[in-house]
Amino acid sequence: MRILGVDPGSRVTGYGIVDADRQQLRCVAAGVIQPPRVEPAARLGHIHTALTALILEHRPTVLAIERVFIAKNAASALMLGQARGVILACAGTADMAVSEYSASQIKQGVVGNGRARKEQVQHMVGILLAMDLSAHEHDTTDALAAAICHAHGHRVAAQTGLPAGARWSRARRR
Amino acid sequence: MRILGVDPGSRVTGYGIVDADRQQLRCVAAGVIQPPRVEPAARLGHIHTALTALILEHRPTVLAIERVFIAKNAASALMLGQARGVILACAGTADMAVSEYSASQIKQGVVGNGRARKEQVQHMVGILLAMDLSAHEHDTTDALAAAICHAHGHRVAAQTGLPAGARWSRARRR
Repeated sequence: MRILGVDPGSRVTGYGIVDADRQQLRCVAAGVIQPPRVEPAARLGHIHTALTALILEHRPTVLAIERVFIAKNAASALMLGQARGVILACAGTADMAVSEYSASQIKQGVVGNGRARKEQVQHMVGILLAMDLSAHEHDTTDALAAAICHAHGHRVAAQTGLPAGARWSRARRR
Repeated sequence: MRILGVDPGSRVTGYGIVDADRQQLRCVAAGVIQPPRVEPAARLGHIHTALTALILEHRPTVLAIERVFIAKNAASALMLGQARGVILACAGTADMAVSEYSASQIKQGVVGNGRARKEQVQHMVGILLAMDLSAHEHDTTDALAAAICHAHGHRVAAQTGLPAGARWSRARRR
């Protein structure tokens, strides 16, 4: 299973593509999409073009993305929604499945602790993928963490018979 | 000048393409993009594909779109933002200019009254484009209204020397 994890943002969008086969995780590609500081539409177009190119090159079958809990104001929700919409559209056009996870589910899935600190998450992502993440941006790490969370969710699901991903997480929240 | 007006929505997105030359307005194409009731990502992908096809077919140079005033809650802002992001990305990829107008600016630009009722707007859009809009959805009319507002803004700008579109509207809001 090849998973595309994305951490959306209108300025910087992190991505991480992870192969999850049996007990092994492997990072295929990771980085950030950072459009030039132009008008919003041009930035969003840049994100769409760049992410579509990554999807066409690496052919992931699943998008793992953080579910948004609206903590801040509606204006920032709109801005985040715009970047998120572009990413979801890329996945939709490529006929990929989409799994959404809350921030605490991602921490739980990577570190085993839903309240883990950012540094712990980064540390574990580095260990699990045998990567040195010190040169990478936080957005890249967060995207890889989402992908790993999906991989681990599927692994747990395979062991317990529970459906993985969004359905599983929805079931937990009820 | 060929203007694409869009009224974004996650369920129904209205569009209207208007040619504005000198004193004349002409509707080139209008309708709605209504994705099947599938997952959000697939719906957003559908909107992107459909709008891109329209842009490639008709080659508008400007996108006119309603500026969002966040009246409702942050969750609906996120949903609206997602659809909006896809539309802006289409415009950005096609290297189109983007002009945003508030709802009252659009009413003002079409009817000459920023507090006009929906029926008045529909009536005037029909007259200005010499179209029978009774068979069209409200979303289509709203999209055409945004395009007409942009055309009229440019006409006013040409007469007064004021910059049209987003800059003009920003200047007014200060």
